Amino acid sequence: MKTILLNNRPQGKPTTSNFEFVTEDTELTIKDGEILLEAAYVSVDPYLRGRMSDAKSYVPPFQLNEPVQSGVIAKVTATKNDNFKEGDYVSGLLNWQTQQVSNGDGLNKVDGTKAPLSAFLGILGMTGLTAYLGLNEIGKPKAGETIVVSGAAGAVGSVVGQIAKILGLNVIGIAGTDEKIDMLKSKFGFDAGINYNTNKDINAEIKKLAPNGVDIYFDNVGGPISDAVLFNINRFARIIICGAISVYNETETPKSVSVQPFLVKNSALMQGFIVSNYADKFPGAIKQLSEWLAEEKLTYTETIVNGFENIPTAFIDLFEGKNKGKMIVKI
Amino acid sequence: MKTILLNNRPQGKPTTSNFEFVTEDTELTIKDGEILLEAAYVSVDPYLRGRMSDAKSYVPPFQLNEPVQSGVIAKVTATKNDNFKEGDYVSGLLNWQTQQVSNGDGLNKVDGTKAPLSAFLGILGMTGLTAYLGLNEIGKPKAGETIVVSGAAGAVGSVVGQIAKILGLNVIGIAGTDEKIDMLKSKFGFDAGINYNTNKDINAEIKKLAPNGVDIYFDNVGGPISDAVLFNINRFARIIICGAISVYNETETPKSVSVQPFLVKNSALMQGFIVSNYADKFPGAIKQLSEWLAEEKLTYTETIVNGFENIPTAFIDLFEGKNKGKMIVKI
Repeated sequence: MKTILLNNRPQGKPTTSNFEFVTEDTELTIKDGEILLEAAYVSVDPYLRGRMSDAKSYVPPFQLNEPVQSGVIAKVTATKNDNFKEGDYVSGLLNWQTQQVSNGDGLNKVDGTKAPLSAFLGILGMTGLTAYLGLNEIGKPKAGETIVVSGAAGAVGSVVGQIAKILGLNVIGIAGTDEKIDMLKSKFGFDAGINYNTNKDINAEIKKLAPNGVDIYFDNVGGPISDAVLFNINRFARIIICGAISVYNETETPKSVSVQPFLVKNSALMQGFIVSNYADKFPGAIKQLSEWLAEEKLTYTETIVNGFENIPTAFIDLFEGKNKGKMIVKI
Repeated sequence: MKTILLNNRPQGKPTTSNFEFVTEDTELTIKDGEILLEAAYVSVDPYLRGRMSDAKSYVPPFQLNEPVQSGVIAKVTATKNDNFKEGDYVSGLLNWQTQQVSNGDGLNKVDGTKAPLSAFLGILGMTGLTAYLGLNEIGKPKAGETIVVSGAAGAVGSVVGQIAKILGLNVIGIAGTDEKIDMLKSKFGFDAGINYNTNKDINAEIKKLAPNGVDIYFDNVGGPISDAVLFNINRFARIIICGAISVYNETETPKSVSVQPFLVKNSALMQGFIVSNYADKFPGAIKQLSEWLAEEKLTYTETIVNGFENIPTAFIDLFEGKNKGKMIVKI
């Protein structure tokens, strides 16, 4: 049995020395109500960087010398719990550990005949849920409206854009390379894209692409890109704050254009979105996403790395953009 | 008949030279369906500054060389409209004009025997409605929560604090003089107050007064005061953006602490509030406010300036905080 512990907290960009591998020969046993799990796929996500710090946040920090956790698809290899049988696959927040014991709380069964198992960490997992629920619960999209998505080529952003197209919106994506902009339009069906690295005036470009203004902004980045969008919002605009990656690494408190005058002038709403607050809506969302996936209305990209020992490297590679779409480690 | 026109658009802080007084000898006449009105009380409000600019906003800008408008209580002095009789008092959005003709659209009759006429511009008018509906519709207050109110000694802020106390919240007000802070506590029942002019570290002071954090922030001011509150918001906090008086007169786009990381970390909501969007809820709100007023659970302060010719000065004085509570000009 192998486990990956948080050895020390990253200063700046994480490195492999932040993690420690432990190998034990112990045979795990289960008690009544418990199941034995074997990891099959492990999700690595940028947000885990936050839990490796000890700053106050919506999820408690990882403890030093304890296993790191993330979204995992695992196989039930032994069971003393009537809700699970041997051979079932489950998804949940689990340890970076080859084998582990669970009482089943917080685990959901996944059906590998309906979609590849890895999809339950991406488009049918937190990624898809974040896109679907963030857009619907806060964005309340209506056909004919215009949405801007930042971080549009990322795992969440690319799904937001596709769902918005399904719902009949005009979709503008913002990303950092021409290759990504091409992909947004050719693969994910966005109506238009803006390369923030080559475009000198994002505000003016949005005005050109959205002459009637922006009704919804799905914000993954914060910072100057979000400032530019603000100048284009419509009355009753909804802004979903899903992430603020552009300012996560700043050491000083970041400053931006004051949002308050824009919000009051436009009766606009800005709300922080964390998918775990909407757990009661997961089943309905998964059902809809699965249908769209089966109908080929949704597509996705994933980067699959092989081997438990490569989890830390795969995580670190996220910050160098080495992944395309969702980054997953196959055990 | 005297009229106040918008002579030119203010650059920065408004001055008396932005306004022009016109005196005419014309005798106004009314046609069938019309009424003749004589202004009795004129409301001056910070939001009017926005309408004096020609920037796109939720209400169209005032036109140059046309009368400025605001909330007015007027007496019906002649009538050819069956809905109004001579001697009635009405409230509505009317011109800064001693006499004017109306067809009655958008006017509400007010009953001066139930409360002083000026109250219908304040606690039983837009001021009270803004406080009540902003707090309830966006703030969704729950007993035991903590609210911070900025511009707390202002017309809206002082009502917000009183309603929050009625509803069982812990109420902290921010205002600009010790006299105002004393009034918040002694007259309006706030639990605590912070003088932003003498307190060097508002963030730390809020932490001290609200050790369990801030659940609701009713924001009338924007700028550095609002930045300080952000550092103290709780998970699921609601921030009502009712005004941003601190930045209304800025000529450059104002910058503040980036709100996005605070909102996402706390799943918090920030929403621009404009009372006119909630017109369907006015009757219920007025009923509740009238009851509380009759039960003496609510009190209010007004600063009454005398004389039609002093309307512009009274308006300008708002930006220097010269008013206590609702600023009204008695004609």
